[in-house]
Amino acid sequence: MKFLTATAAGKGTFLGLALENGREIVPLSDLERFLDPAAAFPKTMLELIEKEDQFLPKIAEACNRAEQAGALKNFAVRTDDVRFLPPHVPRKNIFCVGKNYREHALEMGGEESVPEALIVFTKAPTALIGHRETVPAHGDLTGCLDYEGELAVVIGKRGQKIRKEAAASHIFGYTIVNDVTARDLQKKHRQFFLGKSLDGSCPIGPWIVHRSAIEDPSRLRIETRVNGELRQKARAGEMIFSIDEIIAEISRGITLEPGDIIATGTPSGVGSGFRPPKFLRPGDWIEVSIDGIGVLQNRVGE
Amino acid sequence: MKFLTATAAGKGTFLGLALENGREIVPLSDLERFLDPAAAFPKTMLELIEKEDQFLPKIAEACNRAEQAGALKNFAVRTDDVRFLPPHVPRKNIFCVGKNYREHALEMGGEESVPEALIVFTKAPTALIGHRETVPAHGDLTGCLDYEGELAVVIGKRGQKIRKEAAASHIFGYTIVNDVTARDLQKKHRQFFLGKSLDGSCPIGPWIVHRSAIEDPSRLRIETRVNGELRQKARAGEMIFSIDEIIAEISRGITLEPGDIIATGTPSGVGSGFRPPKFLRPGDWIEVSIDGIGVLQNRVGE
Repeated sequence: MKFLTATAAGKGTFLGLALENGREIVPLSDLERFLDPAAAFPKTMLELIEKEDQFLPKIAEACNRAEQAGALKNFAVRTDDVRFLPPHVPRKNIFCVGKNYREHALEMGGEESVPEALIVFTKAPTALIGHRETVPAHGDLTGCLDYEGELAVVIGKRGQKIRKEAAASHIFGYTIVNDVTARDLQKKHRQFFLGKSLDGSCPIGPWIVHRSAIEDPSRLRIETRVNGELRQKARAGEMIFSIDEIIAEISRGITLEPGDIIATGTPSGVGSGFRPPKFLRPGDWIEVSIDGIGVLQNRVGE
Repeated sequence: MKFLTATAAGKGTFLGLALENGREIVPLSDLERFLDPAAAFPKTMLELIEKEDQFLPKIAEACNRAEQAGALKNFAVRTDDVRFLPPHVPRKNIFCVGKNYREHALEMGGEESVPEALIVFTKAPTALIGHRETVPAHGDLTGCLDYEGELAVVIGKRGQKIRKEAAASHIFGYTIVNDVTARDLQKKHRQFFLGKSLDGSCPIGPWIVHRSAIEDPSRLRIETRVNGELRQKARAGEMIFSIDEIIAEISRGITLEPGDIIATGTPSGVGSGFRPPKFLRPGDWIEVSIDGIGVLQNRVGE
């Protein structure tokens, strides 16, 4: 199941379910009305994540019943008719893993750039924007705006000192992040944060895919295109630190909470890796696609 | 006025006001009952921060009336009888400025360590603990736990591209932060985040002092003691980047929101600056004091 947060005319802001056809969305509040208002479906992604055991079976049941009754079409909204918001805004900054693909580490600084220990920095929640929203160019601050397509993990179950073997059970689902980066600021300010947290520099979505739909996350293919040109292409299994290792390592000393989001690093092919560099320009379209999840598409503003 | 969040027997978790005598606290809900229940005093620090113009005059009036009526003592709680919580848990990670005192930059790595541009990293909200709470030693993860006493700024008014000259008007108040750091993890993981965000590694408080009580923040003296031994001593005016410059620089590309917290960097005298280093040990008492604000006291756990 694919869950999202969006706004639509007459619906306000709602938590929705993307249908399998990829063209329609069902607001959970409409499904609730169909099944039984007493089902008290979640109003926010966090509520859904925190009570997934309670809600997921009911949502599936409501979907099936509505489909069998031919009623789904009555409250489905076309994806083209909604404005996507970030599917979820966590209570912590987004955790981001740095240099987690060998070829990317090499393009960023050669062999000594390949990490022996996990590198983690963060992006502020104010950087989050939804699918199809505009990435501000911040032309007054940077001339080196760059894309980084990434697979992101959404934590479902609270935990500290999570063993690698138990990590999968702490995942609620997966989404796509574009870790947009001002390369000049990233370098100038030494720590990555300021160059990584500009307003609107963290497109995320379009939705969170529940883990049950992803058999083996290491097999997911990540591709990034700019104006249709393929720039990044890798399998998640090429990560230096696997998803399970990332969760284990972060949670050794930091409690992970429901709704926390971890972007797992970007493959080679970022703009600054080209000679000459291919930085983003106003009007560029960036598409990050991960099979089994979808396509996150954003345009760079003027 | 000094505002805090605490729990006490029979009171639950409450937003309170520390009285001038420093020994007593008045829950705002009790003041509200005294003045007029319709005053609808804030229940959380964020509500107070977001509506300070509305609430501060009423709170001051209620205090004066209660004092004149000799009623304050009826609902004052002794500070010794409360458990302090972090005065506020923001919606973003804590912003932290790195190497913002020249002498500290020098003790950490010599002349090339002195920054030409602002360095910012973050600490996760799960690291926050209150005054008198225990800092976990994390002995399984680090042998180099260190203290960093800091003046912290609490943002009151939302803003982006805040001019240096206007920065003061975006401040709600000031508090004290101990930016506890695992030096080995800070180094091993390259970016500071993992070594800076261990659970319980961000003591904060005891309270937030409203800006009206601090005439000139650059004159505040910061002192850190470990088991009574003076380790750090500086004036806030010795910062390389002033509070106003920090707010201006961060907000050039990042929207600052009410309740955001910025720790402004630590003076020289951290444990790792001594030869041999004086890292924290289980049972150590750390006190960070800033005149005009108070003393933040925490013990390192076993």
